[in-house]
Formats: sequence, C-alpha cells, structure tokens
Amino acid sequence: GSRMFAEVPKKQLVKTFVSESFLKEKANRELLGKLPYETVTDAVFAAMADTQTPQGILAKVRQMEWTLAEILERGKKQQGARLLLLETIQDPGNLGTILRTAEGAGITGVIMNEETVDIYSPKVTRSTMGAIYRLPFVYVKDWKESLLELKRQGIRLYAAHLAAKHSYDEEDYRKNGFGFLIGNEGNGLTEETAALADCYIKIPMEGEVESLNAAVAASILMFEAARQRRHITKSL
Amino acid sequence: GSRMFAEVPKKQLVKTFVSESFLKEKANRELLGKLPYETVTDAVFAAMADTQTPQGILAKVRQMEWTLAEILERGKKQQGARLLLLETIQDPGNLGTILRTAEGAGITGVIMNEETVDIYSPKVTRSTMGAIYRLPFVYVKDWKESLLELKRQGIRLYAAHLAAKHSYDEEDYRKNGFGFLIGNEGNGLTEETAALADCYIKIPMEGEVESLNAAVAASILMFEAARQRRHITKSL
Repeated sequence: GSRMFAEVPKKQLVKTFVSESFLKEKANRELLGKLPYETVTDAVFAAMADTQTPQGILAKVRQMEWTLAEILERGKKQQGARLLLLETIQDPGNLGTILRTAEGAGITGVIMNEETVDIYSPKVTRSTMGAIYRLPFVYVKDWKESLLELKRQGIRLYAAHLAAKHSYDEEDYRKNGFGFLIGNEGNGLTEETAALADCYIKIPMEGEVESLNAAVAASILMFEAARQRRHITKSL
Repeated sequence: GSRMFAEVPKKQLVKTFVSESFLKEKANRELLGKLPYETVTDAVFAAMADTQTPQGILAKVRQMEWTLAEILERGKKQQGARLLLLETIQDPGNLGTILRTAEGAGITGVIMNEETVDIYSPKVTRSTMGAIYRLPFVYVKDWKESLLELKRQGIRLYAAHLAAKHSYDEEDYRKNGFGFLIGNEGNGLTEETAALADCYIKIPMEGEVESLNAAVAASILMFEAARQRRHITKSL
C-alpha cells in the first residue's frame, strides 16, 4: 500500500509495480516521484497482490540484513545495547506490534530464534508500521550460543519468570547493556533459555490474571527501561 | 472450550452442552462435576459450535451486567476508581487483550461507548482469558454525559494527546480516582472526547514511530499507575 511504500528506504527498493487506476490519482504520481516503476493492468495487479482489496502499488524490497556482531556494535555506540530477545513468537500480529513498540522504546536491536514467525510475512510487515525498515534485527541459527555471546559481552539478560523475587521496576536498566527475553505466546520461555538469564523479574499482577499477552509484557518492560533512562540523574 | 468453561462463574451458567466424545474423557467429566448438562452427538455439536475444531463443550452464560453507578461505587470501596475509558475500539483481539491486561493492572472498571466492538463476540471473550467474568464493564448510551459524570465525581481523566506537555510518568495517579481515555486504533480519540480530559499526557517515543497500538498504549499507562501504587510511600 501507499503508506508502507512511503516508509521503504528507497535504496532498498528493487522493483515497483503500479496498477493503471493507481496512476490516475495525482497524489499517487507524486508518491512515486522520479522513482522507476512498471505499470500493469488492474486485472494483472489484482492477481499479483496478496490482499483482497489491493491499493494499486506493490514494491519488491531488498531484505534488511544485519549480523549479531553488527547489532552488538551498534549497541556500543548507543550507550549500551538495549535488546529484545524473542523465542518462538508465533503470532504475526504480535511480532509486528512488538517491533513497532520496540522502536518507540529505543531498543537498539531484536534477536530472534529461527522458530520465530517470519518477519517478512505480509501481516508482520504491515503491523510494524515501518519499524521493520529502521530497527536492526537478526534470526540466529544457534540461539543458545548467541545468548552466551551476549553474556560474554556483559549484556545482562532478564527473563520474566515465576521464580522471580524482584518486580521488573526494581531493577536498574541504565547500566551497561540489557536484553529482555520474551517467550512463546502459549508456553513462555523454554526452561533451557530461562536458565541462561542473569536475573528473573516479575510483572506484579492483580486479580486472577496468570499471564499477559507477549506483546503487552514486552511493552511494559521496554517502556520501564525507557522511563528509567529519561530519569538518569534522579532516583527510580 | 474447557479452559473458558473453568473460568465461568457457575451462578452465571444458563445451560451447558457437551458432545458424546467429550464425555468419554475422565478429566472432562471431572470438569463438569455435579453441574447440569445436556449431551448431544458429535455431529450436532459441530453444527452448534462457532469454531472449526470445537472442543466438545459449549456453555450459554448470562451476560454480566453492571451500571455506571455500580462501577463508580465499587471504585470508592477500592481506594478510588481506576478506570479505562474506551472510545470506538474496533479490533476484537485488541479489546480482549486490553481487558486481560486491565484486570492484571488492578483497573476497577471499564467504560465503553456504544461504537466499541461487542465484548461478547467470541474472539473478544476468548482473548480476555476469563477477565470478562471478573472485571466490571459497561457500554454507556451517552458517552459524553458519562464522562462529565466521572468528572463531577472527582475522577481525573487523562488522554494521550499531541498537545501534552508532560510525559505519562510525570503525573501522580495515586490520589483520588483516575480514568485513561483510549481511542480508536486508526483515528485515536475524537477531538470532542479529548476536550473533556483534565490532563493531556504523552508517551515519549524514540525513532520514527508516530503512535503505539491501542492495547500497548493502554498497557503502558495502566502499569505505570500500578507501579506508582506499589510505591505509595516512596518518591516516583
């Protein structure tokens, strides 16, 4: 759609297709500007698009590629890595929402295991609201080894866990780097992954609620860390 | 399903249907206990259920009914009303997630305008994870008049708004009652509703993110208020 197209970094554009009726609108021609594109009939366009009501513009975009090393390097330049570590997130809407929120909360990189849903699936891409083009991410082959590498680099790993003694807001996220481990929607973190955390934290809950949606839990943790960074000279 | 059935307050049960194969499992018979139920064939059950893979148990539940006055009365008994005020939330998954999070954050009641999606639609009910049976809510006919009534009762209304001077964590939510106004996913709050707020707040954002998902924004605000209540004797 037009909105997503406007968000794409233009150097990542491989090819752009537009429908004949799309080109009739002045605003649409302005959106394209001097970028190269190929026009197809509305019927051909409908066959190419993956949505029921295509908007008339379709772009092939080069995948954004980051390595774990690049993400760590970037963290160092930004007063310490602030990472989100996603284990087997399955719902595309959840992943998209998490990425959108992560950018807003000043996360410097997102690291995912290979069982996490494909970030390039259209539902994820759309629900990131453009964050997919700006927030560095990587799918790592060896999840456990990658977490161990973060620990060797002095990045403190936090996991929401029933065995936690401290509430999430009693930890100080302003020193060095940190990573929040977020687990699968239904099953949470695997015990193997939780065992790698440096610190267990809990989100205190009232009523009879047992757990929060993965995107909500991640958002609360990320924005608490952001809140603390804004109060760098004050007490918590 | 069985999980939802276990959450239903039994005095709200009107009628329970189970399939023949459901009854064959010992755990299922234990779930039913001494409650009255009607057995139907698997074929009949499949026709009654609204899901593709029905679990074999279907309950008709009396709607939970609250009035605005009851919700306000309940707030007074719990050291001040802590309300969520939803204007035209359209996505069933969002509404369900908001209710689940609201119970966990200690919200005392949820007030919705009539344009908000039906809380009894199956997708909302399921995604609340049982919160729908425990958290008081009401759809109000006259949205504006209801907000004015809250203000007359001394409940302070907060709205996330571009014109905000203060960040959401710079306000003190521990005095008297409060209500967070949350607007439609695409359009936010109407200007008419935003004008009724006593205080505008902003969620500071990094990167190029312009807004957060409605459920995420609501979660961050509610858990900040909960965090402050836990630190009643400390500074913020």
